[in-house]
Amino acid sequence: MRLRGRRGTREELEQRTDLVVLDPKAYKGRWHERFGNNNPIHVELGMGKGQFITQLSAQNPDINYIGIDMFDQLLHRASDKAIKARIEHGRPELNNLAIVLFNIEYLEDVFADNELERVYLNFSDPWPKKRHHRRRLTHPNFLRKYMRMLNSNGDIHFKTDSEELFEFSLNSFSDVGLRMRNITLSLHREGNPSFNVMTEYEGKFVEQGKPIYRCEVVVGADALAKHVEALKTETSK
Amino acid sequence: MRLRGRRGTREELEQRTDLVVLDPKAYKGRWHERFGNNNPIHVELGMGKGQFITQLSAQNPDINYIGIDMFDQLLHRASDKAIKARIEHGRPELNNLAIVLFNIEYLEDVFADNELERVYLNFSDPWPKKRHHRRRLTHPNFLRKYMRMLNSNGDIHFKTDSEELFEFSLNSFSDVGLRMRNITLSLHREGNPSFNVMTEYEGKFVEQGKPIYRCEVVVGADALAKHVEALKTETSK
Repeated sequence: MRLRGRRGTREELEQRTDLVVLDPKAYKGRWHERFGNNNPIHVELGMGKGQFITQLSAQNPDINYIGIDMFDQLLHRASDKAIKARIEHGRPELNNLAIVLFNIEYLEDVFADNELERVYLNFSDPWPKKRHHRRRLTHPNFLRKYMRMLNSNGDIHFKTDSEELFEFSLNSFSDVGLRMRNITLSLHREGNPSFNVMTEYEGKFVEQGKPIYRCEVVVGADALAKHVEALKTETSK
Repeated sequence: MRLRGRRGTREELEQRTDLVVLDPKAYKGRWHERFGNNNPIHVELGMGKGQFITQLSAQNPDINYIGIDMFDQLLHRASDKAIKARIEHGRPELNNLAIVLFNIEYLEDVFADNELERVYLNFSDPWPKKRHHRRRLTHPNFLRKYMRMLNSNGDIHFKTDSEELFEFSLNSFSDVGLRMRNITLSLHREGNPSFNVMTEYEGKFVEQGKPIYRCEVVVGADALAKHVEALKTETSK
């Protein structure tokens, strides 16, 4: 992503203490204290300009959201969008979003075991070269980190426009023994549910007629039990 | 598939008793007796004109193959191909293939529990209409049948050109709790392994540049244990 530098960005971020977190390690195991409640925490790894997470957070006041990315300019854009989204939804008082500056590679320094309920991976970097596959956010090494951080209701929601990343990810989820559901090879195919909140990238791809791949991954034991129960009910209909 | 009728087809099939089985129910639980050995049995459900199963059977004398379809003309074509393939491979004496006339819907009348080691599903009918989805050979109702018939080393190999059938099938495999592996959204993409034996359909689709979707599904307990062990070794490299 091309980012135009601008003087004073960091200074502005430092002043948006209600939204922006520049020292996330300080909150490891204590995110609930920051949000002031025990609501579930959903994290987007690689939020980009933040359209997805800011919309969701304005729509769902009873869930706490954390959007992570590693460039000041992205955090700045995302925090602008957060303020705008709250006003648009008539909820300027909302306090359920943290916009976090951090390198996802060291995620375990920011979240304690069982601290999260959902991980969103939206249009993650596909890292096409074989020697870079370990950097893919769906590599088994990353999945094992998420599995520790997610609680018993935990799941992962993943979408991408990259066929190769999706293929790799389906195999990764399988290889670590996780159960998938709602797999689709064409999210915007006619007849598919329209609950989806789009990211900036997604809007462009859909305009171009490119398929979007998506799946959910059940991680927590309670989430799995509920899922299996729901499947039974569906079958018996 | 368009089939030209021809007089005398059934009579010819009745004479090819070394290859063709018109009364498969008689062999339920006794297929090993027919083959005269205890080699593993691999079944292709919907063999069509038989290119895939006849090639495999000529290549692998230590595996018993059963190809099933429900039209006399297909059985006739497949048995022609079987004879040709054996000669091409210099093994006219082979006796490891049965070409079976049967409606797959009633598969449990033909195979006993644990009688099979592999099920091949190649370019199965995608049954696009929602009310016909139960007829898809990867519908959970069919998968549960295969799970009973497959032994502890059992697996399923599935390929298709239909995006919607593949998507449906990935969800079916997940929903019945089976572990997938070697999932690919583009079997003939450059760099993918070329061990693949092609079907008649596949050859045409590949010429047209259409993607072929494929995955393997681990069913048996021993197969799963071996798979998990292999993944560990791979990771520790």
